[in-house]
Amino acid sequence: MSVSPFADWMAATQARVETALARHLPGNDCIPARLHDAMRYATLGGGKRVRPLLAFAAGELTGAAAEQLDIVACAVELIHAYSLVHDDLPCMDDDVLRRGRPTCHVEFDEPTALLVGDSLQTLAFELLASQPLGNPAGQLEMITLLAHASGSRGMAGGQAIDLGSVGKALNQPELELMHALKTGALIRAAVLLGALAGQPLSAAERSNLDRFAKRAGLLFQVVDDILDCTASTATLGKTAGKDEAAAKPTYVSLLGLDAARQYADELRADALDALAIFDERAARLTQLADFICHRQF
Amino acid sequence: MSVSPFADWMAATQARVETALARHLPGNDCIPARLHDAMRYATLGGGKRVRPLLAFAAGELTGAAAEQLDIVACAVELIHAYSLVHDDLPCMDDDVLRRGRPTCHVEFDEPTALLVGDSLQTLAFELLASQPLGNPAGQLEMITLLAHASGSRGMAGGQAIDLGSVGKALNQPELELMHALKTGALIRAAVLLGALAGQPLSAAERSNLDRFAKRAGLLFQVVDDILDCTASTATLGKTAGKDEAAAKPTYVSLLGLDAARQYADELRADALDALAIFDERAARLTQLADFICHRQF
Repeated sequence: MSVSPFADWMAATQARVETALARHLPGNDCIPARLHDAMRYATLGGGKRVRPLLAFAAGELTGAAAEQLDIVACAVELIHAYSLVHDDLPCMDDDVLRRGRPTCHVEFDEPTALLVGDSLQTLAFELLASQPLGNPAGQLEMITLLAHASGSRGMAGGQAIDLGSVGKALNQPELELMHALKTGALIRAAVLLGALAGQPLSAAERSNLDRFAKRAGLLFQVVDDILDCTASTATLGKTAGKDEAAAKPTYVSLLGLDAARQYADELRADALDALAIFDERAARLTQLADFICHRQF
Repeated sequence: MSVSPFADWMAATQARVETALARHLPGNDCIPARLHDAMRYATLGGGKRVRPLLAFAAGELTGAAAEQLDIVACAVELIHAYSLVHDDLPCMDDDVLRRGRPTCHVEFDEPTALLVGDSLQTLAFELLASQPLGNPAGQLEMITLLAHASGSRGMAGGQAIDLGSVGKALNQPELELMHALKTGALIRAAVLLGALAGQPLSAAERSNLDRFAKRAGLLFQVVDDILDCTASTATLGKTAGKDEAAAKPTYVSLLGLDAARQYADELRADALDALAIFDERAARLTQLADFICHRQF
């Protein structure tokens, strides 16, 4: 029995992405077996797959083929998986639990986890460059966008700001910049790459989609901060309460819980407003924004 | 006074690559400043730039433009620099000296060094995708080649085999596979990408260039192993004797010093034989193979 057509779509897309990831990750028949085992451990069998879902939903705006969205979704998720493995390392967040299982360096060992993250990143770019995705110039645009979003002026840069901010009182613009880079940039890339896999958007459409993508990224982080201090470790599948324990600035520590919830609602409303130009083509993106806003894990 | 035209060419090319790297690395006026400082520290102001030199020399075979070779050389060197930063981390080789200076995690800190390596890798792919390099399909081929050479079935895979081999007695084929991946794959990529930046080679030429590239990569490693046990830390600019200290299998531990030197000579001869098809167009590659074989640091 299905809960809703949206829940069905989400489950089917998650399963589809899992299959695609399993196909594109080297098997453990491929040398070195242990490294490939660890890459599969860190990537498969878990995760909400929010970024792949966003890529698929954005692809519906532009009529992108599912086979091409598989590649785009895998590339973005591989970057996300690499970042989790490295973020969990002892020298970073030193975390032992991820997706309800031991983190990669706990299950394997620290040097292997370092190489797993390195290799997952490389595989993301190898996939985007080597698989057929329509036209080569468009593929280069996707690679440029994903690289910029995940590098020192994107996700990794946000992580560096985060490291430097522990114990400091950031104001809202500073916190927003950190999150725009740390989480927002890759979520935005997922949306834009999904749309790029189909027919070209008009300038106005692209600008609105970009606004949606930025709001969705921020919304995801605000809700993440709320859940970190309200949900349990068992529900999250990762260690709860660690932001507060680490004296990390969050939307909750900055605004308080009620105002953070209100801010999430405002971001959701603005995200949906940006989608108005697409009419019913944006049905999935609309539902995803609701899901991101109201998720409990 | 110049020592030789080859030494002049080498110095000029190294200076050119340094300038290109400095231009493409984000400045410390770009947020986050400390991360960008550390990326520049880890990449600029040192190194033999063997891979860039190989890319430029291979570009002479195919009439590649210097501006395009700048991009290719930077991309390959950024991958190399990322691998050094991560290899030096405490959980890997735990080394404090690189290019005569403190390693990145010693000069900055461990989490920053992790992010430096991650971000240098990303920047390599961003450069190859975003800069004009002739035709987009050729650019995708370069990205695919570089990614494959540096990922889990290339450099990172070789590093994983290396980790697993400490204290074990590898036979020559096993040692050769490890080095073909760990060092050889990226050196091969430098040669092939340099050639790809110019006019297409015939199938026979490409096959010979590939043979040269593989031999040059192995030669580089055999000489590295010899230097690790014969040269001083001061000469190398990195910790000498650490292979033996770590009980790592090397060509010297496997073959003995004399036979390792003889093997280097054989590899050089075979590398030069592979270049015969190119006549004088391969003058630089020939000189580089000699340099790699006879270097003292």
